[in-house]
Amino acid sequence: MTRERLYLFDTTLRDGQQTQGVQFSTAEKRQIALALDALGVDHIEGGWPGANPTDSEFFADAPATRATMTAFGMTKRAGRSAENDDVLAAVLDAATPAVCLVGKTHDFHVTTALGITLEENLESIRASIRHLGVKGREALFDAEHFFDGYKANPGYALDCLRAALEEGARWIVLCDTNGGTLPAEVGRITAEVIAAGIPGDRLGIHCHDDTGNAVANSLAAVEAGARQVQGTLNGLGERCGNANLTTLIPTLLLKEPYASRFETGVTRDALRGLLRTSRMLDDILNRVPLRSAPYVGASAFAHKAGLHASAILKDPATYEHIDPALVGNDRVIPMSNQAGLSNLRARLSAAGIGVEANDPRLATILGEIKTREDQGYAYDGAQASFELLARGALGLNPTFFEVKRYRVTVERRKNKYNRMVSLSEAVVVVKVGEVKTLSVSESMDETGTDRGPVNALARALAKDLGPYQACIDDMKLVDFKVRITNGGTDAVTRVIIDSEDGQGRRWSTVGVSANIVDASFEALLDAIQWKLIRDVKVPLA
Amino acid sequence: MTRERLYLFDTTLRDGQQTQGVQFSTAEKRQIALALDALGVDHIEGGWPGANPTDSEFFADAPATRATMTAFGMTKRAGRSAENDDVLAAVLDAATPAVCLVGKTHDFHVTTALGITLEENLESIRASIRHLGVKGREALFDAEHFFDGYKANPGYALDCLRAALEEGARWIVLCDTNGGTLPAEVGRITAEVIAAGIPGDRLGIHCHDDTGNAVANSLAAVEAGARQVQGTLNGLGERCGNANLTTLIPTLLLKEPYASRFETGVTRDALRGLLRTSRMLDDILNRVPLRSAPYVGASAFAHKAGLHASAILKDPATYEHIDPALVGNDRVIPMSNQAGLSNLRARLSAAGIGVEANDPRLATILGEIKTREDQGYAYDGAQASFELLARGALGLNPTFFEVKRYRVTVERRKNKYNRMVSLSEAVVVVKVGEVKTLSVSESMDETGTDRGPVNALARALAKDLGPYQACIDDMKLVDFKVRITNGGTDAVTRVIIDSEDGQGRRWSTVGVSANIVDASFEALLDAIQWKLIRDVKVPLA
Repeated sequence: MTRERLYLFDTTLRDGQQTQGVQFSTAEKRQIALALDALGVDHIEGGWPGANPTDSEFFADAPATRATMTAFGMTKRAGRSAENDDVLAAVLDAATPAVCLVGKTHDFHVTTALGITLEENLESIRASIRHLGVKGREALFDAEHFFDGYKANPGYALDCLRAALEEGARWIVLCDTNGGTLPAEVGRITAEVIAAGIPGDRLGIHCHDDTGNAVANSLAAVEAGARQVQGTLNGLGERCGNANLTTLIPTLLLKEPYASRFETGVTRDALRGLLRTSRMLDDILNRVPLRSAPYVGASAFAHKAGLHASAILKDPATYEHIDPALVGNDRVIPMSNQAGLSNLRARLSAAGIGVEANDPRLATILGEIKTREDQGYAYDGAQASFELLARGALGLNPTFFEVKRYRVTVERRKNKYNRMVSLSEAVVVVKVGEVKTLSVSESMDETGTDRGPVNALARALAKDLGPYQACIDDMKLVDFKVRITNGGTDAVTRVIIDSEDGQGRRWSTVGVSANIVDASFEALLDAIQWKLIRDVKVPLA
Repeated sequence: MTRERLYLFDTTLRDGQQTQGVQFSTAEKRQIALALDALGVDHIEGGWPGANPTDSEFFADAPATRATMTAFGMTKRAGRSAENDDVLAAVLDAATPAVCLVGKTHDFHVTTALGITLEENLESIRASIRHLGVKGREALFDAEHFFDGYKANPGYALDCLRAALEEGARWIVLCDTNGGTLPAEVGRITAEVIAAGIPGDRLGIHCHDDTGNAVANSLAAVEAGARQVQGTLNGLGERCGNANLTTLIPTLLLKEPYASRFETGVTRDALRGLLRTSRMLDDILNRVPLRSAPYVGASAFAHKAGLHASAILKDPATYEHIDPALVGNDRVIPMSNQAGLSNLRARLSAAGIGVEANDPRLATILGEIKTREDQGYAYDGAQASFELLARGALGLNPTFFEVKRYRVTVERRKNKYNRMVSLSEAVVVVKVGEVKTLSVSESMDETGTDRGPVNALARALAKDLGPYQACIDDMKLVDFKVRITNGGTDAVTRVIIDSEDGQGRRWSTVGVSANIVDASFEALLDAIQWKLIRDVKVPLA
C-alpha cells in the first residue's frame, strides 16, 4: 500500500515566540531552524518580518534549509491595494519561498475587530493571495478563528476559504485561534469543509491547547482528511501553547493507524534525535524540561508502581506503549516506597550489586527506605544515595573517612567601600585512618560573589581527603535543589545534589534535616562516598 | 431537558502519588482530600492501604467527606480465597465505603505477568468483587490494560468486565494503563463495550497522557456513553500523568455539548475555586505552577500578540474561549503596553497607594520590576515585596531601622553523649535611630532540634527592634519556600517567606542571592518592613 504524504509545518519561531516570557535572539532562531531542518519538518515559519527587528534580522540572513522557509504576515488592509500595503510589502521583502497570511473568516471579527464589510474582507483575501502568486511565492492562507466563524456563519467562512483557494493558495489552514474547539467538532467541521469542495491535500490544521486538546484536535483533522499539521516544539505558543509537534510527530510515525498510512519528512532515524531537539529548545529558553512530557519527558518511561516495575522486568511491552529508544529516551525504574522487592532488585543490579531474590536483607533495605521517605527523603531522584543505603544494609559500604566536626559562618557587614557584602567560610575536620586534617574554605567565586554556606562547606570538604584526594579532584557539584517538605510532622529541608566527574558520570544524592546546611552536608558526603567506591584502588575493608 | 449525571472520580492521592518524585505526607493527603471535597468530586481514591505506611495512616484517620472515600487494591491472587488474601484484607481494613480493585483483562498479561490461566483470572475477579459486596462496600473494578486487551482478545476482555458486573460492581472502569490508546480508538471501543451489554451508566474511563491525549480520550469515552471520568488534579500520575481533572472539569461544565447535557457534583460556584485548588497542590509539592496549563495556567489568558491584545481591549470574547473569572483566573496583558500600566496602577491601588495615570514613576517601577525579575525575583507570589519596591520608587518607604551586620554560624560536632549534633546561632546588630542593639539567638526548638541558620537569623532579627518591638511581637514566619533559579547566567537562590500576624494578615516577601542565608535575610527584612508600615503609630519621616 502506498502511503499518503502528510506535511509538518513548524511555527516555533513565530507562534512559539508568542509564549509569555519568550524572546528568541537571531542566533537562537538560526539554531532552532537548523535543528528543525535536521528533524525533517516541511515548513519552518521564521517570524513576521517587519513586526519586530529580530524577525527581520533572522530573514535577512536565514540559514539554508531543505524545509521551505516561510514568512508570516496578514492579508492587506482594506482601502489600499496589495501592492501599496506596507505591512505586506515588509513580509515579501523577507524573500522567503513561502508566505503564510492570516486573514479573517469569522463574520463577527470582520465587522467588530476590523470594522469593514464582509465583501471588503473577501477582497482583501483574494488580492493578497493573488499578489503572493504574482511575486512567485508559495501562498498559505491562515483562516483565523475558522471554527468559531464556521459555527456562526458557515457560508461566509467557506467563502473566505474558497477566495484563497481560487487565487492559488497552496494551503488553506484551519486555525482554532482561541483554542476553544473540541476534538469532535474539529473532526466534523474539517470533514464538512472537505465535502464543501476544499481538497484535503490543500488543507492544514493549526490548534491551540486551551482545553488540553491541541494534539487530539490535530489528529481529528488528519482523520477527517487534512494533510498539513501545524505546531511547535515542546508546544510553545500564545496562552496555553500550540499543538505540540514533539508529541505529534512520534504519534504519527509510530502509532496506528497513522504509521502505516502516512509518510512524513521525518525519518525513523531522525526521530531518535527528538529528545535531544526538545532539550535543546529548553536549554535555549533556560527552562526546566517538563518531566511528564509525552515521549520525551524524563518520567515518560519511569515505572514507579511496584506492580508495573515487576512486570516491566519480565517484558517491557507490558507497561510501555512504545520503545523509549525510538525517540531517544530511556526507561527509568525509580526507587520509592510504592515499589516492590523486584523493583528493588532491578535497581541494585543496575548498580552492580547482585542479591538473591530470597535474601532477607532486601526487606530490611525496603523497610529502611520507607522509614527514610517518611522522614522526607526521596530516592526517586537520588539513585546514588539509594545505592549507599543498600550497600550499608549489605555491608558493602566501606568507611574511607570520617568528618569529626564542621563549622560554617556567614557574615554580612560593610566592606571598605562602605557597601554591604557577605562572606561565607567553612572549617571541616576530617579523619582519614589515624590522620586528622583541618580544612578551611571561603565561598567567594571568581567574580567576587559569595556563593553561600553550602558552597563553602563543599569546598572545604573536598580540599584534603589525604590518600583519596586524587579520586575526587575531577568531581564537581553541577546542580543543587532544595525543597521544604515534611519529615513526620515538622517542616524539614530536603537537598538533592547532582555531581559530575571527569569520566562523564553524573550522580544524585539526597540529604534531609531541619537545618539546610546539615541537609546539604549529608548529600555532599554521599556524593563523595559514591565516587570513592568507584575509584579508590585499594581493597575494601 | 433533564441533564444526565456525570460522575467525577479523583485519584490524585493514589495514581497521582505514582508521579516520579511525589510522596505525600498523611497531613498533605488530608488537606488535598478536603480540597477535592470542597470542589465537589464524587469519589476520592485515597491510596492503597497496606502498600505503604502513609496510605494506611491516612485511612486510619480519613477526613469526613461528602465524596465517597475509596481505597484501592487488587483482585485476590490465584490459589487462595478472597477471605484469605492478606493484601485484599489490608484494603478492606481501611473500612472505606467504596473499594476499587484493579484486575487483568488482557490475556497476555494474565498468562505472562501473572502466570495463571484465563479462567483462574476470571475467578479472581468474581470472588474479589463478590467479597466486596459481602463486606457491604461499593465495588469498582479497574480493568487494567482494557483497550490493549480488547484489541488482542475482545471476547476475553469483555468476559472480565461481565464477571465483575455480574458480581455487583457499581462501576467498571476501562483503564488505558500504558496510555498508548488514541481518541478515535477509545471512542470506538467504549461504544462496542456498551453495545456488548455493559451499561454506560456503570462505565468509567481512566486515561494516561503518554500520547498527550488523556483529556481527549476521556471526552471520547464520555461521548460514547461512559459516565464516570477518572483523573487527577494538575494531571499528576505515573509516567506522563493521568487525565487532568483541572482541565476536564471546566470543559465539562463550561463547554458544549457537555455543559447543557451533563450535571456533575461540581457547581459553577465551586469552579471559581479551581485555580486556588490547583495552586494549593503545587504549593504542597513545591512545584512551579505550569504557566501554560489550560484554564488555570498563569499564561492561559495572557495575550502577548499585539493584534490579540488590541482586539481584547475592544471585546474579550475575540480571543478568549471562556471568561477567565469562571475558573478563578485573570486576564493578563503584558506590562509592556498601556494596558500593562493600568494593571500596575490597579495593583498599587489594591495596596492603598494611589498614583495618577500619567505619573512617570509608573514606568520607573515597571523597569525596576523587569530588572529584578531578570535577576531571579518573582513578584507574583510576593505581593508585599512588590509593594515595598513600588513604595521605594514613590518615596513612601520609611526607614525604621538598619541592620549594620549579622553573623550566622552552624556548627556540627559530637555532644556529651558522643552523638553528632548541630547548632545554629545568629548575631544581629540593629540600629534604630541612634541606638545600636546586638541580639543573639540560637535555633534550637522546644524538641531540641536545630532548625538551622535561617531560623536563628529570623529569631535574632525579631528579638529587639526597640520602639518597634511591640509591632512585630505578634508576627510569625508560617512558610518558607526555596528555589534554585537563574539570575542572569548564574544560579541563585530565591526564597519566599510567608508571614502572619495576630490580626490574621498573611503576606509574602521575596529575597534573591547566590547565598541562601542572604536571600532569606532579604525576605525577612521585607516581611518586617511591610508589617511596620501598617502598624507603627508614629508619623512617617
